[in-house]
Amino acid sequence: MFANRIERLKPSLVREILAAAQAPGVISFAGGLPAAETLFQPQLDQWQAPSHIWQYGPSEGEADLRELVAARAKAMGLDCRPEQVLILNGSQQGIDLVAKLWVDEGTRILCESPTYLAALQVFELFGAQFITGEQDAIGLTPAAIAENEARFAYLIPTFQNPTGACYGLPQRQVLAEALDAKGMPVFEDDPYRDLAFDGVAPAPLVSHLKSARWVYQGSFSKTLAPGLRLGYLIAHPDLIVPLTRLKQAADLHSNRLSQAIVAEVLRSGQLDEHVAHILPSYRAKRDAMHAALSQHLADRASWIKPAGGLFFWLHLHRQQDTLALMQQGLAQNLAVMPGVPFYPNGKGASALRLNFSHSSIGQIEEGVRRLAGLLR
Amino acid sequence: MFANRIERLKPSLVREILAAAQAPGVISFAGGLPAAETLFQPQLDQWQAPSHIWQYGPSEGEADLRELVAARAKAMGLDCRPEQVLILNGSQQGIDLVAKLWVDEGTRILCESPTYLAALQVFELFGAQFITGEQDAIGLTPAAIAENEARFAYLIPTFQNPTGACYGLPQRQVLAEALDAKGMPVFEDDPYRDLAFDGVAPAPLVSHLKSARWVYQGSFSKTLAPGLRLGYLIAHPDLIVPLTRLKQAADLHSNRLSQAIVAEVLRSGQLDEHVAHILPSYRAKRDAMHAALSQHLADRASWIKPAGGLFFWLHLHRQQDTLALMQQGLAQNLAVMPGVPFYPNGKGASALRLNFSHSSIGQIEEGVRRLAGLLR
Repeated sequence: MFANRIERLKPSLVREILAAAQAPGVISFAGGLPAAETLFQPQLDQWQAPSHIWQYGPSEGEADLRELVAARAKAMGLDCRPEQVLILNGSQQGIDLVAKLWVDEGTRILCESPTYLAALQVFELFGAQFITGEQDAIGLTPAAIAENEARFAYLIPTFQNPTGACYGLPQRQVLAEALDAKGMPVFEDDPYRDLAFDGVAPAPLVSHLKSARWVYQGSFSKTLAPGLRLGYLIAHPDLIVPLTRLKQAADLHSNRLSQAIVAEVLRSGQLDEHVAHILPSYRAKRDAMHAALSQHLADRASWIKPAGGLFFWLHLHRQQDTLALMQQGLAQNLAVMPGVPFYPNGKGASALRLNFSHSSIGQIEEGVRRLAGLLR
Repeated sequence: MFANRIERLKPSLVREILAAAQAPGVISFAGGLPAAETLFQPQLDQWQAPSHIWQYGPSEGEADLRELVAARAKAMGLDCRPEQVLILNGSQQGIDLVAKLWVDEGTRILCESPTYLAALQVFELFGAQFITGEQDAIGLTPAAIAENEARFAYLIPTFQNPTGACYGLPQRQVLAEALDAKGMPVFEDDPYRDLAFDGVAPAPLVSHLKSARWVYQGSFSKTLAPGLRLGYLIAHPDLIVPLTRLKQAADLHSNRLSQAIVAEVLRSGQLDEHVAHILPSYRAKRDAMHAALSQHLADRASWIKPAGGLFFWLHLHRQQDTLALMQQGLAQNLAVMPGVPFYPNGKGASALRLNFSHSSIGQIEEGVRRLAGLLR
């Protein structure tokens, strides 16, 4: 006999699509993987691991890494102290910890629609219900906050997954005002910030809050390497103690080897160097996908060219079964992600999420051509 | 407003004691840390990291590591296939995943009393209630299983934390029969197995089950290095799919760098070499603590000399407040762990848990002398 929550533990569509997408010869727009050639590969043979990292370490994370993360957060406009930083085994873990912090069965979460499907899965596992308020072309409106009751808002303000949308500075300010006025806490998920192709992203939404409580999280998976499994959260001072206890209960502490590697990468300036190195390639791929979509699909779909992140979000003009479309794509060695699982309430327009980071430019052009064939 | 479970998220006594125990000059019997000189330190400068490990990886863990773990499990008497293995960020994570699998608010868990306090904390966070049935000098009796209703049993049959007790083969067999007869699943937590000072430990209890479902878990923290944060669980075929989905929801997958390091260590036979190298030192420390206790505390306490693991469990003849005793110890630069938090229902005999792995033999002798002074 399982716990009740196991009934809500659905087979992950993503897992299945990603498995299919890894077959040789498949062009995959399905995942959210960095390109192999953009991964940061630490030169371990030229590195002296600090001897203390093999012992048990602090649940909060290594002191030096927390300082470096706090300094980086300040540089992006989020004033915080190192004591507010908690190091995670990748930012997926932050979702689990925030769910434990805030979600009971029946807890209402205000979120964008569509939004990150693995966050929906975790929140749902803990029994959450989703509220999607009034939206504009970018995301939630202040009215969505004012007019709805929810324990907290889950937002991806910067290069959202899946839409690629990014709230501007004024929008962040009015949303922060609305959250303060409502006293609604916010969980800002921000893994794509550094992948900005057309100028620096505005400061985090939570940096504009005056009274509402907040958790902000970031990741090194998109800028360095996912295999390191390293992310972090920064929390309002009232929240960092319970979050740290939840982290301790979950796995005592994060991997110290990865923490030491990333601390060294931050200290030496290699992170910014690496991001500067990979951005032109990602930008070129983004442009190539935009051009291919414009050439082949302008009459059948609409999209906004994303200013950052890893995805195009394609609205199909004709209503259709995108799950069936995905299956048809796989039969032609093309993997795309159907839009349905990104909608908190399971329903939405016919849409596809297309990842442009993992494929080569040639694959992007060929894949969009195949997709156009499927839609014809 | 927090989730209800946060009310059950108590400040961790262990965290506080361990923080105090790290002050310079303190002799610490409080933690469960391996000695610094016994930690396995991978020679990263002579190692070529496989290039694929920087990308996202499988939630189940690396295929080669799962095979190596399954082979090792077979060698200890637990027949299983690599598909039943799930790689964890340390075995604390297995407790979180099993809690998610089985524990609702009010779920009854049958466990030894005393038992591992961090497991109690996690289960309680998820709302569990604890049942402690009939016990003998070693642990649970078959009657405890036959006479109680619980969703599952949580057991540490081998060199238990905190008692150091180890179920013999016949006891494992009759307990397995009782679990089968009752249809009660079991979660066997087995991090200390390889630290066996007086002969090999009997095969895992779950290896004797015929029909009851089970989860078994082990760790590389005690044999290699805790900082690697690497453990594993092996589960009944009916349980591995939901456990893998829970792992994916928790943090996508475990650190691939640590997985590659440990796979190489297992493949090359270095794990057994390292264990053979550290056992004499741990055995000598165990013997030194036994001798010191015999010299100084034979009239005030009783204990069983543990055949493995990291701890002595000291029953004080006179009922006393062991929390106050701990505070008095810290004032004299001695950290001991009070027994209270190890009791599922918060009450038990006056007892102390004494770790012998972290201190030198000189510190063990001096620490026991100080403890005897406190008890006088």
